[in-house]
Amino acid sequence: MDNASNRLTHVTTAGHVHMVDVARKEITERIAHASSFVACNAEAVRLLRSGELKKGDALAVARVAAIASVKKTPDLIPLCHPISITGVKVDITVQDEGVHTQTRVTTTDRTGIEMEALTAATTAALNIVDMIKAVDRGAHIAYARVDHKAGGRSGSWTRSD
Amino acid sequence: MDNASNRLTHVTTAGHVHMVDVARKEITERIAHASSFVACNAEAVRLLRSGELKKGDALAVARVAAIASVKKTPDLIPLCHPISITGVKVDITVQDEGVHTQTRVTTTDRTGIEMEALTAATTAALNIVDMIKAVDRGAHIAYARVDHKAGGRSGSWTRSD
Amino acid sequence: MDNASNRLTHVTTAGHVHMVDVARKEITERIAHASSFVACNAEAVRLLRSGELKKGDALAVARVAAIASVKKTPDLIPLCHPISITGVKVDITVQDEGVHTQTRVTTTDRTGIEMEALTAATTAALNIVDMIKAVDRGAHIAYARVDHKAGGRSGSWTRSD
Amino acid sequence: MDNASNRLTHVTTAGHVHMVDVARKEITERIAHASSFVACNAEAVRLLRSGELKKGDALAVARVAAIASVKKTPDLIPLCHPISITGVKVDITVQDEGVHTQTRVTTTDRTGIEMEALTAATTAALNIVDMIKAVDRGAHIAYARVDHKAGGRSGSWTRSD
Amino acid sequence: MDNASNRLTHVTTAGHVHMVDVARKEITERIAHASSFVACNAEAVRLLRSGELKKGDALAVARVAAIASVKKTPDLIPLCHPISITGVKVDITVQDEGVHTQTRVTTTDRTGIEMEALTAATTAALNIVDMIKAVDRGAHIAYARVDHKAGGRSGSWTRSD
Amino acid sequence: MDNASNRLTHVTTAGHVHMVDVARKEITERIAHASSFVACNAEAVRLLRSGELKKGDALAVARVAAIASVKKTPDLIPLCHPISITGVKVDITVQDEGVHTQTRVTTTDRTGIEMEALTAATTAALNIVDMIKAVDRGAHIAYARVDHKAGGRSGSWTRSD
Repeated sequence: MDNASNRLTHVTTAGHVHMVDVARKEITERIAHASSFVACNAEAVRLLRSGELKKGDALAVARVAAIASVKKTPDLIPLCHPISITGVKVDITVQDEGVHTQTRVTTTDRTGIEMEALTAATTAALNIVDMIKAVDRGAHIAYARVDHKAGGRSGSWTRSD
Repeated sequence: MDNASNRLTHVTTAGHVHMVDVARKEITERIAHASSFVACNAEAVRLLRSGELKKGDALAVARVAAIASVKKTPDLIPLCHPISITGVKVDITVQDEGVHTQTRVTTTDRTGIEMEALTAATTAALNIVDMIKAVDRGAHIAYARVDHKAGGRSGSWTRSD
Repeated sequence: MDNASNRLTHVTTAGHVHMVDVARKEITERIAHASSFVACNAEAVRLLRSGELKKGDALAVARVAAIASVKKTPDLIPLCHPISITGVKVDITVQDEGVHTQTRVTTTDRTGIEMEALTAATTAALNIVDMIKAVDRGAHIAYARVDHKAGGRSGSWTRSD
Repeated sequence: MDNASNRLTHVTTAGHVHMVDVARKEITERIAHASSFVACNAEAVRLLRSGELKKGDALAVARVAAIASVKKTPDLIPLCHPISITGVKVDITVQDEGVHTQTRVTTTDRTGIEMEALTAATTAALNIVDMIKAVDRGAHIAYARVDHKAGGRSGSWTRSD
Repeated sequence: MDNASNRLTHVTTAGHVHMVDVARKEITERIAHASSFVACNAEAVRLLRSGELKKGDALAVARVAAIASVKKTPDLIPLCHPISITGVKVDITVQDEGVHTQTRVTTTDRTGIEMEALTAATTAALNIVDMIKAVDRGAHIAYARVDHKAGGRSGSWTRSD
Repeated sequence: MDNASNRLTHVTTAGHVHMVDVARKEITERIAHASSFVACNAEAVRLLRSGELKKGDALAVARVAAIASVKKTPDLIPLCHPISITGVKVDITVQDEGVHTQTRVTTTDRTGIEMEALTAATTAALNIVDMIKAVDRGAHIAYARVDHKAGGRSGSWTRSD
């Protein structure tokens, strides 16, 4: 069994968590894509698509909060390294069954950026739920996942399912 | 059509977002439960259940991060009111298909606490993904949702699906 | 000479700063309005008013950041008490000579909310400068000020100039 | 019309805000100077110049808060990149009509540091207003602006007015 | 054996940490005093007492940082409740063997304020060590402790040693 | 007298604090070790060693909070530079007279990492005090200190006492 798969990288042999030492890892350009989906009822979709949205900035809140959350990732995930961020893009689209978010985050640093991309997708979803919960109490995050990563020693990966 | 359902509460009639004025809302005891599920492969489940976990504190990180995130909710969700927090409980269990988190948050304040409970469930999930991503790149948040809320003018609600 | 005017409230008789003790002050509803103005050139005004603005969320960033900054005020101003926030409203309008922001913040607590309102007006302005600095390097904050406050022992006040 | 002047850099062609990708920008030494002025009445000036100031640390609060705010800039301005900070200097002088702040911030990174310098000048001003508002309710920020920047592709610039 | 002494309050019967539910605890005025001591060599003491200190604001940094840290306590200590703060006072004196800090923090809330007072005393000490470490590498925190607390169900307590 | 010992590095010749300019300092690998000790009574030691600890995650909270605090150091110490963090390790052991924490932090940057290591040791101690204060009101931080540093121009150093 290879080394990567027989223990959790964040746990020492003594069973204690640590922030993994990456001093010897190379600084390279890295990218990650993530996405999330908030499932909601037709009334919430209608409102998000209606005049309020056109005139206003309902989805902009989610977009701004998602961008901001990239910088808060090391605070939300204690074992994450604080890393440089070179760019963040967040696309949010209202669909018939809910709201779809796609994020793209880049860095030039020693560790991957996928947790930042996933945190952004998740934070967008949290803000969307907050925005529509008064009209759909059952609105929820149907999924949040990393879709693609590239750069760094472990190579690129794209979700296949 | 009732008032609650024909507009987004966070959006003014001019279409701009605001933090809703709650000065006239009553201070009451409120509670919310939320849950999340991280789907992962058998190897990740095995490691989370194995010696490393028993000896160590792998899940404790997720639990502590989830509790801490309750206090960061107004920072992650710009339109959320900062409210008092009277208690937080986070239960995380490793199951055959992944990791299940349940949160319970209480307040005695003017607005509901469901976004705090959902943020805690989501943050636990983010930390779990971070912990196991080296052994299962496809690990993802399968859902994150509010399950129950009580207290306040709008009454109690429990997810039915 | 009255007590209020012969010393700085944040400075003790020994000349040291402190966070003033407000335990004996009454909890009352309080409100404050503040405003700011970012002066910029015609090109920046044109872009803010043009298609990009209509299609997009340029000003929404400033509005969201301003709302969020209300909750960061005790962190930016070390001697400020952390207080409850019951509502925040931020209006931003593009005018011929620049961008005008008006904020309105409410609390039900022991101390005034004017620094929160001023911080929000200032933060909106900082974000607007950031947004347009590539097209107008000279864009700057022409003023930021409290315009009105009400509630609490010292009574209401409105700027007269 | 050149590229820089016909659109807002923080807005995509779809009209959505993003954090601009700077991965290809060169790491260079950069510097920015900014300043602000708090206009206040003679009584406030007298107190800031009097014994309390000499014995104490009234202006030190503003200086420390300004230095600290440099590190909070990416949190206040959602679209700002988090960048390394190599030095911060804040000079505050009490003048006949109010309080003048000058800041100087340096970095060795991919993007400019002027928003950090402006945030520091603005935060110093916010703290000064907070310090004297009990003796001069009309005290306000008369201006806050970037005065000089150097380093990076766009070359150096000094305010001419 | 009484209930208070036979288990850790922050640990559930299942052995998991939680943020204790205080919804039923009474809101009362509470106070806590704490202190710390940074031991350092004669050269550091001389510099802190010399011209630089008189002209400047070396100790003011530690005082401001200590006041600010009171508001960061719930972020540093994950299981701490966020509580209202009604006042903070920090006294720092240079003595022959080092620097002594005394803090006094008050609240009107459901839980005690001693961790906030201790965090302030500790943060003052951290800043003092940072300030003098270039002239005394061995400078260290000789102690940091709660000295007194009053208010709340468990009554008042004063350190006897 | 050499330059390092005749003034405080954080204080300018005018007596004002600043964040020292490190732009010209070389980027090198650096490491620091720190430690702390929380003195407590036998009952607290017994509980930390007993079933609750074995089953649970009492010490894990302190470990996670200590790791997280490394990233908060520039926020707690206003004059500290924000620096990259390449690794954090925190060991906590329960001894007969109390709880011993050892931290090890690494960076590859322009300034030393000893304040981060000391902040982590101190934050672990604060969390331990919080955890046991209900069973030992007199529990306190008996010391917190840097034990070793290496890397950078000033060379390596190890505490000798």
